[in-house]
Amino acid sequence: MAIDNVKALGFDVFGTVVDWRSSLIREGEALGKKKGLGVDWAKFADAWRGLYQPAMDEVRSGRRPWTKLDDLHRMALEQLMKEFKIMGLAEKDIDHLNRAWHRLDPWPDAVPGLTRLKKKFVLATLSNGNVALMVNMAKHGGLPWDTVLGAEVARHYKPQPEAYLTTASLLGLRPDECMMVAAHNGDLAAASAVGLRTAFVPRPTEHGPGQSKDVKPARDWDVVASDFVDLAARLGC
Amino acid sequence: MAIDNVKALGFDVFGTVVDWRSSLIREGEALGKKKGLGVDWAKFADAWRGLYQPAMDEVRSGRRPWTKLDDLHRMALEQLMKEFKIMGLAEKDIDHLNRAWHRLDPWPDAVPGLTRLKKKFVLATLSNGNVALMVNMAKHGGLPWDTVLGAEVARHYKPQPEAYLTTASLLGLRPDECMMVAAHNGDLAAASAVGLRTAFVPRPTEHGPGQSKDVKPARDWDVVASDFVDLAARLGC
Repeated sequence: MAIDNVKALGFDVFGTVVDWRSSLIREGEALGKKKGLGVDWAKFADAWRGLYQPAMDEVRSGRRPWTKLDDLHRMALEQLMKEFKIMGLAEKDIDHLNRAWHRLDPWPDAVPGLTRLKKKFVLATLSNGNVALMVNMAKHGGLPWDTVLGAEVARHYKPQPEAYLTTASLLGLRPDECMMVAAHNGDLAAASAVGLRTAFVPRPTEHGPGQSKDVKPARDWDVVASDFVDLAARLGC
Repeated sequence: MAIDNVKALGFDVFGTVVDWRSSLIREGEALGKKKGLGVDWAKFADAWRGLYQPAMDEVRSGRRPWTKLDDLHRMALEQLMKEFKIMGLAEKDIDHLNRAWHRLDPWPDAVPGLTRLKKKFVLATLSNGNVALMVNMAKHGGLPWDTVLGAEVARHYKPQPEAYLTTASLLGLRPDECMMVAAHNGDLAAASAVGLRTAFVPRPTEHGPGQSKDVKPARDWDVVASDFVDLAARLGC
């Protein structure tokens, strides 16, 4: 079987491992209550995530020099604070809100599944999140990574090939010895194009109710699993 | 206290966390028995480690482009195989021997100490070992790193300042929020010079019986601990 050689799993994180939307809404509501802000935090969370790809495109295109995701999040946050008329926050409150991305909660199956997978595979983040963000999130949620790799170390944002290939290279592995795990068909397509194996784990409520994108596998990926515990079973853990 | 701000510990690994000498001797003896080689494996281990700093100096000086430690180890191994008249090994045997560095055993206090320290601090490798070497060694010995950083990610070998500063930067921390943990006074001096806090943990048998270097702290480091369990206690874990 093509996946018998797989030694390491590289994980997309936002959406695949953690539920960013519910977590951001929770963080926003806590701040709103404390500061008396009347904000629709679901809309705010979606708008913040909506600025994610355009911000990374500035870096991918070379129009902006390498900028880590914490800083892209902060620029987007400042723009959204104007749009949502959020005023009167001290710098430490703004920084705390920006670091809500460091405190995203894992999906319920993530830690049990990763714990099983870790016995057989090297588990690495292969995320666009920067190292500090990933490390702090792992501390917050108990995610048992062997190491944190991905965009910042490669200095290229997914889906650029360097993000996947640098991660495999740093692990001392050929691309086909690594498997990309993601809830996003586009991420898997880019990983597959440079030789990684692929596992699709749908997260049909990542974007809230009524999600239409990425609810099903778009291609015949090497593995399709219902969640991380099912992924562990399918990979023989 | 100057160390109250410390959020992350960066660990030297060879000698500080793992007992490279005994482990290499064990690996050599197993190979020698299997292949009928009459080699003094203690001398071999010391000679291999002896080529470590000169090999890295080639990279530090710029005479050799960036080369990861696995590859420096391999070049030194090929030289030593001639000197020790080790013949008749297949490529897979040579590669297995070179990867003995991936299978070094931790000192007995390392895992219990790190496990306690992990509850309060981010634990990162800050080693000259490459990422794959560190990840595989952690799997072998059960070392509970939060992430693997250090020379390969910084593309600078310690004691060059970039190795320490890039590690702090990737963790999103100021240098004084990071503490270097090492059994080597020179490593701590270089870390301290760029603003990191310092913890000395002597390993008086790292080089075998009769070791004279680094048996005591050379300066008044921020913390001096007898082993990693003592370090955890001294750091309030």
